[in-house]
Amino acid sequence: MVPTIFSDTIVALSTPPGAGALAVVRLSGPAAIAITASVFSKKSLADAPGHTLHYGTLRAPDGGEILDEVVVALYRAPRSFTREDVVEISCHGSDYVVRQVLALLLRQGARLAEAGEFTKRAFLSGALDLAQAEAVADLIAADSALSHRVALNQLRGGFSQELRDLRGRLIKFAALLELELDFGEEDVEFADRTGLAQLLAEVRGVVAGLLRSFELGNVIKNGITAVIAGRPNAGKSTLLNALLREERAIVSAIPGTTRDFIEDEVSIDGLRFRFVDTAGLRDNPADEVEAIGVARTRQRVRQAALLLYLFDLTELTPAEVRAEIAELTTGLDLPVLAVGNKTDLVSSAVQAAFVSEFQEHKSRTSEAPLVLLAAGQHQGLEDLQVALLAQVRGSALENTASATIVTNVRHARALETAAAHLAAVQAGLDIGRGTELLAADLRHALAALGEITGEISSEDLLTSIFTQFCIGK
Amino acid sequence: MVPTIFSDTIVALSTPPGAGALAVVRLSGPAAIAITASVFSKKSLADAPGHTLHYGTLRAPDGGEILDEVVVALYRAPRSFTREDVVEISCHGSDYVVRQVLALLLRQGARLAEAGEFTKRAFLSGALDLAQAEAVADLIAADSALSHRVALNQLRGGFSQELRDLRGRLIKFAALLELELDFGEEDVEFADRTGLAQLLAEVRGVVAGLLRSFELGNVIKNGITAVIAGRPNAGKSTLLNALLREERAIVSAIPGTTRDFIEDEVSIDGLRFRFVDTAGLRDNPADEVEAIGVARTRQRVRQAALLLYLFDLTELTPAEVRAEIAELTTGLDLPVLAVGNKTDLVSSAVQAAFVSEFQEHKSRTSEAPLVLLAAGQHQGLEDLQVALLAQVRGSALENTASATIVTNVRHARALETAAAHLAAVQAGLDIGRGTELLAADLRHALAALGEITGEISSEDLLTSIFTQFCIGK
Repeated sequence: MVPTIFSDTIVALSTPPGAGALAVVRLSGPAAIAITASVFSKKSLADAPGHTLHYGTLRAPDGGEILDEVVVALYRAPRSFTREDVVEISCHGSDYVVRQVLALLLRQGARLAEAGEFTKRAFLSGALDLAQAEAVADLIAADSALSHRVALNQLRGGFSQELRDLRGRLIKFAALLELELDFGEEDVEFADRTGLAQLLAEVRGVVAGLLRSFELGNVIKNGITAVIAGRPNAGKSTLLNALLREERAIVSAIPGTTRDFIEDEVSIDGLRFRFVDTAGLRDNPADEVEAIGVARTRQRVRQAALLLYLFDLTELTPAEVRAEIAELTTGLDLPVLAVGNKTDLVSSAVQAAFVSEFQEHKSRTSEAPLVLLAAGQHQGLEDLQVALLAQVRGSALENTASATIVTNVRHARALETAAAHLAAVQAGLDIGRGTELLAADLRHALAALGEITGEISSEDLLTSIFTQFCIGK
Repeated sequence: MVPTIFSDTIVALSTPPGAGALAVVRLSGPAAIAITASVFSKKSLADAPGHTLHYGTLRAPDGGEILDEVVVALYRAPRSFTREDVVEISCHGSDYVVRQVLALLLRQGARLAEAGEFTKRAFLSGALDLAQAEAVADLIAADSALSHRVALNQLRGGFSQELRDLRGRLIKFAALLELELDFGEEDVEFADRTGLAQLLAEVRGVVAGLLRSFELGNVIKNGITAVIAGRPNAGKSTLLNALLREERAIVSAIPGTTRDFIEDEVSIDGLRFRFVDTAGLRDNPADEVEAIGVARTRQRVRQAALLLYLFDLTELTPAEVRAEIAELTTGLDLPVLAVGNKTDLVSSAVQAAFVSEFQEHKSRTSEAPLVLLAAGQHQGLEDLQVALLAQVRGSALENTASATIVTNVRHARALETAAAHLAAVQAGLDIGRGTELLAADLRHALAALGEITGEISSEDLLTSIFTQFCIGK
């Protein structure tokens, strides 16, 4: 892609709004330095080398009042984020000062940047590919160790490199096919069909692995919604409070205390879980409000990524627990954890007997692992956390051969398109379809992969990507 | 004052919290550069010159994962805000990233900065005097043109210079008195008593001027609370909406619509006005709720800095308006604006007659200026704004001889103390009190003035000042 040269200079606040010690206003474009120098007390700025800092004051060139004392950070093209001349002005962190500084720079000829426009320029100048540029927004939004790690790996080009390797192999494949086409009339087969089939199988395997990683990627990026359900007074609100380490839900001994959903997030070993406490499930609700609550609980279970079925060890038998889980998850393909509460009220022997009887039923019905704990006493919570992680990682991670994790819906869609076209190539090879048709499908697959890193892109696509950014990025 | 050298290195987030393109983490202290270099990919940082920018990655020294791609801004002592070595790390503006970066730097030996600690170090190193340091917080909080201008002038040392001049003159005075004391037994009067009295009068005049400026300073810093009161249906809520240029208050033709106070701020010509819309005042409220509203309106009038008495031109006579204002402000020393509403319903001739009759009463009772307008039609609002500014500035500005405006309560208290001691010197001179007593009072006055810029300060004073700052400043 040919780098784009912009003629205008953009400006925006790059730090979060609000009061703070510092705020940073960023300019990028051919006039970034000249515009700053026109309002900066140190006129030698225009000739200063890149990667230097300059202390001085800002004031309107027509002899206006001093606006602020600032430090100007100077970056000269192409050694900057956007590969353009870039200036970052650190002023005092007051909204008033920032407004005045922005107004001054706009009067001097800068244009207010659109959302994501700095990163868009970094992409269009070739400093970042599209997948890397998208990772900038992910990195800013990252709020757990894993989502941060995945975004940073993507920003640093890990995903892009993997895609480049993939495309490289496909292009080699395509080149051989195109060569055959050139010599088509002579009916020569340059490409060894067996070797081709092998290469194709490999590439399809990588694409399928990346697609499967999207399941985990989605979990990493958006968290896992785990619904806590069970009979009234099983201790659901107590468990929620214990998991969140705070008194989030109102706990009482009165069955049916929780009517609305109470939900909050907690990060376990870098993964974000969103726990939803629900109304207790009983066959004969005490009143209409409770009945509505129970219906809504079933609704939430259907939307959950994970079900925590909580029960009172002193109340239910293993068979009853199995039956209630089966009833609750009828028709749903949902990972379930069976969690027995109130171990403090049950002897070790009884607990052991419960576990063994529960395991016995396991082979026959569901696969739900069992965890025993005492939520009120904060005992057994670590076991629960380990079981939660195993449930989530087990289903997603073990299917993920690739070290790279796809988190972006757009990327997943492009990979799906590529996979479909590669499947068509495979089918074509199998039935001995003509080289021309194979080559066409291969080109479609290559185009789909190219869209991820932006080697192939349209203005519409770029607009839809970058307008999701915040201003100043 | 001898500059303080600190042995520890402090760190904090210096930009507002929240998501943004950038966040800046600042370190200050002898190990600022070494700590940063220990986790930064570019190890040459330790030898880099000051005022330079360095791009690289952060990661724990024990080979941990890469935390972020950052730019490091390097300042070498004494060319920095605190006059210590300072490093500002621009990382991606995510709370998660910032937490990780702070945690890493703390592990490497930095200490989390207390509120205002960077500015406190700037003061203790002699980079700023105390009045300038306090202006940093004012500048960040400034939200109008005037409050910004006053804070910036103070930060740039305008106020400090005026105080230095003042102290210089007093010290000259004191030196002459002390000389007399040295030669006390010879009963010589080195200091020309008439000249002394003249100098003292001048200095007292300046101090008094600064003290008077505090009234305006307070208005500039905290805004002016203007209560809009009047009979039901005079159009108070309509006026509030017109002033705020939005539909803030519920307006209806039903008298008594407004029961709670509705207040909001608007900046007029750089001054912040807080307008309070109140329940209509009538002698026989419709119900108990309205009665409470009326009582609270009278309460708010007592706390106001300015009263906007609004009346319906078609309803009241000039004499009635005068009487109602007098009744409402009994015992209060409160600037009042009489505002006649609904000019759209009254002919020009009737308006002119009203004005002239109102002016006639003026000399006999209150001095309230009169403004006529049509709030619903947004007519005459400019006249009201001009009258509001005249009321506020008239009372405060015309008493302010000094160009410097005192906005800080602590400064005002110190000036009061100085003024009291200077008055004692004056009294001493008048009654021919002994040189020793005059000199003692003078020293007290000098000490009070010295407290403002911190030439004389205690740890308690510094703690109480800087803990009002935000962290990272």
